[in-house]
Amino acid sequence: METTLIYEGKAKNVYSSDEPNVLRLEYLDQATALNGKKKDVVKGKGELNNQITSLIFSELSKQSISNHWIKILSKNEQLVKKVKIIPLEVVLRNVAAGSFTRRLGVKEGTILEHPIIEFYYKDDLLDDPFINDEHIAYLSLASKDELAYIKSETLKINNALIKIFDDIDVTLVDFKLEFGKDANGAIILSDEVTPDTCRLWDKSTRTSLDKDIYRKDLGNIIPIYQEILSRLKNKGEDKDV
Amino acid sequence: METTLIYEGKAKNVYSSDEPNVLRLEYLDQATALNGKKKDVVKGKGELNNQITSLIFSELSKQSISNHWIKILSKNEQLVKKVKIIPLEVVLRNVAAGSFTRRLGVKEGTILEHPIIEFYYKDDLLDDPFINDEHIAYLSLASKDELAYIKSETLKINNALIKIFDDIDVTLVDFKLEFGKDANGAIILSDEVTPDTCRLWDKSTRTSLDKDIYRKDLGNIIPIYQEILSRLKNKGEDKDV
Repeated sequence: METTLIYEGKAKNVYSSDEPNVLRLEYLDQATALNGKKKDVVKGKGELNNQITSLIFSELSKQSISNHWIKILSKNEQLVKKVKIIPLEVVLRNVAAGSFTRRLGVKEGTILEHPIIEFYYKDDLLDDPFINDEHIAYLSLASKDELAYIKSETLKINNALIKIFDDIDVTLVDFKLEFGKDANGAIILSDEVTPDTCRLWDKSTRTSLDKDIYRKDLGNIIPIYQEILSRLKNKGEDKDV
Repeated sequence: METTLIYEGKAKNVYSSDEPNVLRLEYLDQATALNGKKKDVVKGKGELNNQITSLIFSELSKQSISNHWIKILSKNEQLVKKVKIIPLEVVLRNVAAGSFTRRLGVKEGTILEHPIIEFYYKDDLLDDPFINDEHIAYLSLASKDELAYIKSETLKINNALIKIFDDIDVTLVDFKLEFGKDANGAIILSDEVTPDTCRLWDKSTRTSLDKDIYRKDLGNIIPIYQEILSRLKNKGEDKDV
């Protein structure tokens, strides 16, 4: 398969494929934090995230939540629908953590009565700034209707993900999504859903099972990500019984 | 008049008055920036801002825009309706400047096709963070309807202020408003409208006629604020002819 590198990301590279509307993603053994200011090679991470996001996206597809995932191709590669990424990081919070606690002075772990959505402008040079709906309109990132659709999809995805993680005894604290426009102009969930992009707390121990382990230098993330993958796989097998 | 100090602000002190629903504001000879980290005594400033905001609020009242201002009491004092301040800084931008240019990477002076409104949570300890509508709901700062009202009032006030400043050859770049709830629960414009709370650019020279002179250490603000007051007064006299 002759392919061209289209985009070099922090956690994955994007290549063209034989089909015009299909891309190949290569998940990298690379961990970054603080918008790339902290960066390390973490052997085995690409493979784990490729598998985790594939399990989750395939489950979302079953629940009729459109997303870009097509199929897994190899240990660290997958095929996805070609989309034009909307440069918005869509963050949904169920429990207070991270920048939310610092911005609003709310104690970490506070359960939010209603999920809270925030938007960040995906722009490395500007350090992905937090923006509001009027900034989104000014930057022409999404129309009013598109933004309303992205919000409602995000809430739907939240409900699905809460259930997926609840089933493996994990609290979905918050997560970041990216959406893209496919060849027909439809907005679909893209990028990835992994412990890199979610805050996941073990229900019994309340410890982090996500990238916070790396962000806060709390140890090796590989066994943690492996734990998430194992639980997801085991649950999948339970279901098949 | 026996009065009690109710609130000590950065630019003014708030006292009770003889009437239960009326407060006395004392405008101080004090300039602050960077949320109080930069602070100086500036003799004559209180008097100028007391007069400037009184001229503007009285003009807004004539245009049926409800606000807390009642009357001027002395050089640096005024009477206002007692309100419970909503801890929101409402910023409206007509032209890109300040934090907007840094956040979105937009060149200073860029004219915004539509005015952009931003909200900041008035909380000194948190450094008045930028927040979105969902944060406002979470913090119970305003209901959905109240927020819609505040936005529409802010747009109305913008139209009135643009006209007031246009008439004295000044471009209204951006400004910060605060609203409060009066004894009847009605939301009305409060605080002040002065060169402390607006970015004002001279139409011909494009130089700042506002607190940016102090923020950026560009000189003495007194002659600048005096210039704004003189132009407003002269315009008022023109009208009386």
